Amino acid sequence: MKSKKILLQLDSDRHASSFDAIAAYEAGVDQVLSFGGVGLDDLPKLVYGAVFTRSREALRDTAIYIGGSSVPLGEAMLKTICEKIFFDSKRVSVMADPNGSNTTAAAAVVKIGRVVSLSGKRAVVLAGSGPVGVRTAALLAKEGCHVALTSRRLERAQEARRLVRERFGLEVEPVETRDEAGMRSVLQGADIALGAGAAGAALIHEDLWASNPTLEAVVDTNAVPPLGIGGVDALDNGALRHGKLVFGALAVGLLKMKIHLAALASLFERNDRVLDLEELYEIGKTLE
Amino acid sequence: MKSKKILLQLDSDRHASSFDAIAAYEAGVDQVLSFGGVGLDDLPKLVYGAVFTRSREALRDTAIYIGGSSVPLGEAMLKTICEKIFFDSKRVSVMADPNGSNTTAAAAVVKIGRVVSLSGKRAVVLAGSGPVGVRTAALLAKEGCHVALTSRRLERAQEARRLVRERFGLEVEPVETRDEAGMRSVLQGADIALGAGAAGAALIHEDLWASNPTLEAVVDTNAVPPLGIGGVDALDNGALRHGKLVFGALAVGLLKMKIHLAALASLFERNDRVLDLEELYEIGKTLE
Amino acid sequence: MKSKKILLQLDSDRHASSFDAIAAYEAGVDQVLSFGGVGLDDLPKLVYGAVFTRSREALRDTAIYIGGSSVPLGEAMLKTICEKIFFDSKRVSVMADPNGSNTTAAAAVVKIGRVVSLSGKRAVVLAGSGPVGVRTAALLAKEGCHVALTSRRLERAQEARRLVRERFGLEVEPVETRDEAGMRSVLQGADIALGAGAAGAALIHEDLWASNPTLEAVVDTNAVPPLGIGGVDALDNGALRHGKLVFGALAVGLLKMKIHLAALASLFERNDRVLDLEELYEIGKTLE
Repeated sequence: MKSKKILLQLDSDRHASSFDAIAAYEAGVDQVLSFGGVGLDDLPKLVYGAVFTRSREALRDTAIYIGGSSVPLGEAMLKTICEKIFFDSKRVSVMADPNGSNTTAAAAVVKIGRVVSLSGKRAVVLAGSGPVGVRTAALLAKEGCHVALTSRRLERAQEARRLVRERFGLEVEPVETRDEAGMRSVLQGADIALGAGAAGAALIHEDLWASNPTLEAVVDTNAVPPLGIGGVDALDNGALRHGKLVFGALAVGLLKMKIHLAALASLFERNDRVLDLEELYEIGKTLE
Repeated sequence: MKSKKILLQLDSDRHASSFDAIAAYEAGVDQVLSFGGVGLDDLPKLVYGAVFTRSREALRDTAIYIGGSSVPLGEAMLKTICEKIFFDSKRVSVMADPNGSNTTAAAAVVKIGRVVSLSGKRAVVLAGSGPVGVRTAALLAKEGCHVALTSRRLERAQEARRLVRERFGLEVEPVETRDEAGMRSVLQGADIALGAGAAGAALIHEDLWASNPTLEAVVDTNAVPPLGIGGVDALDNGALRHGKLVFGALAVGLLKMKIHLAALASLFERNDRVLDLEELYEIGKTLE
Repeated sequence: MKSKKILLQLDSDRHASSFDAIAAYEAGVDQVLSFGGVGLDDLPKLVYGAVFTRSREALRDTAIYIGGSSVPLGEAMLKTICEKIFFDSKRVSVMADPNGSNTTAAAAVVKIGRVVSLSGKRAVVLAGSGPVGVRTAALLAKEGCHVALTSRRLERAQEARRLVRERFGLEVEPVETRDEAGMRSVLQGADIALGAGAAGAALIHEDLWASNPTLEAVVDTNAVPPLGIGGVDALDNGALRHGKLVFGALAVGLLKMKIHLAALASLFERNDRVLDLEELYEIGKTLE
């Protein structure tokens, strides 16, 4: 009997995500063990149950997926598992993608990097204080962009800078943008504009980016109308609009899903993978 | 790798029903994702997780089953999912059978219809104000019966009439039956008698139906002793007793289970099936 | 289509044990239905759902596993299911191993019995008032040992004696051991010493058992440092130390796991197995 690929789905929401469970089966997992309402205190028993049950050879057939709508809690879960629970070779591979933030950010930056040389470019992450914004900004900074990260409130943009510094050791520039004039100003001289606002939050009108002479690429990550960036079609996948290469949320989402599935599959190749933002981004670069 | 048949089991009870999960595996489902304690507010995330994960071609390999002991909540869940959450082709097949009420009512009426021509007949649904009673009455009315629905309290019978009107657009006659005389009276001239009372609630004595000159068929849906209709054996499957064709709860239950399994299997033939009472009844008619 | 082996995992903890679920898949179960937060009141619906769904021939493909960290609740669940819920042939096989107490005790006594003739021997179960201690004491008494069971508090040892009497109809001698002198005293003339204390609780120093002239076998069931019995290596599997045969917790644990897996597999051979301590011990005796 072949050893089954078993995935522990640890989710801080009351009901573990049906999306994440179905995605795991799509990725070839044989059995998903779904746990909802998971807090940090629940981790030792759940994780040791995965680590101590199977033989050393079968350990790579067990893996952990951390989801849930709370990104800070998901991050804390990953840190707790890797730093406080695993020890020596007593570990299994683990992937963290709370609220889809890692795979979405990875997909968005991979999309841009395929059409624009990133090093030395000026990138603006609009409404970037949320999890996707912080992660997109970090990846762009890592690729050598000067990144401005905007929020309607300066403190939020500053808090996002702090998160990027602490977690990734990189710098981004916090910018408060209260109105259209602020948006226009921050986009002046920018090469890349990426919308990372909440679902359904309109960020800028079409003419604001269409008339910008320096922008090369425009990306929206919001698939729920009204779109975050006006004039973008959610299906745009490198479409040329007003002389800029445009990516809509569904095109980003399609790559996000491919990264998600490829990452899940790769968990079972070894028992010591840790797939966080950077690793998911690298996986994304290898995909079509 | 073949796409797995995945069923979301949405159950309003704290623990999702083990019966429904096992039945799904019996019906050939590859993976059941069981969710207990589901309320209407939980539906968008759970359902979208099922609708947006797989490719359009694989959508028919995902389906939703609505169970739980609360029939009104199960009905509201079906309505919410079909009318407020699904849109365009973004849907999966769904079956609703809260508390087994739809499959039980469908099986009972299919049984009767196989031995009695229903059109124009007088049917009495005894203790019919519960979910199985309301649904049995509706199906009988739909087949052209004049249906009397009894309850110990007139208001309950009237409320059942209202439910049949609103949900099915059909008429049944509410009758208060406080004692044996009332039962005898409502059965006068009836062709069909069906007991739909709560488990273990005795409704009528054997002589009451045995001595009735017009009754052709007698059906009991209560499998827990004492049976609802005296003198019926739970295993009776069209047995001739006192000149009437008699069906016990286990015979009805066997067909109920066949309908349940066939319906579950049929969910995966398309991605737009909605299997509620009427559809389950039609499936029942096609089964041996 | 082959009938799937389905295991109901009933667990009184909020999250059903990931260890028990993975072990079930390792044992060849096709689908585990995991239920956490299970109380006695939940049992009828959960168990009947397992008993009434499948045909009589397929009943042996469904089984129940009772886990959870509360041993008294696990015992009550087994009793309720077997005595109040199952009836006639309406039953499935069931195994109880709350907190691993049954398989651990069975493995420890099997290990000793393989190197020491148990009948007529004097055995001391150190810190034996917990579930593993009570069960180990019972099995040793059943094999003909005179068993002393120690606790730092006499009442606890007496309560353990009561449990062994009531549940197994056997006698053990309760002994209060407040300090090293007490430990030395109770071990005087003993042939077997077994540590059953809580994880990480040191019970006796190495010299205390090393210098004992009568001891033949020494067993520790605590795998978390500091070990319960000093000078024992957790990997010891019948090692000769100071002239005694020594077993550490990991060697016991390896056999425990084999018993667990073999027991799970045997559930599906019939539909009427009840695997509690005694049966798990018998299974352990048959394993390598």
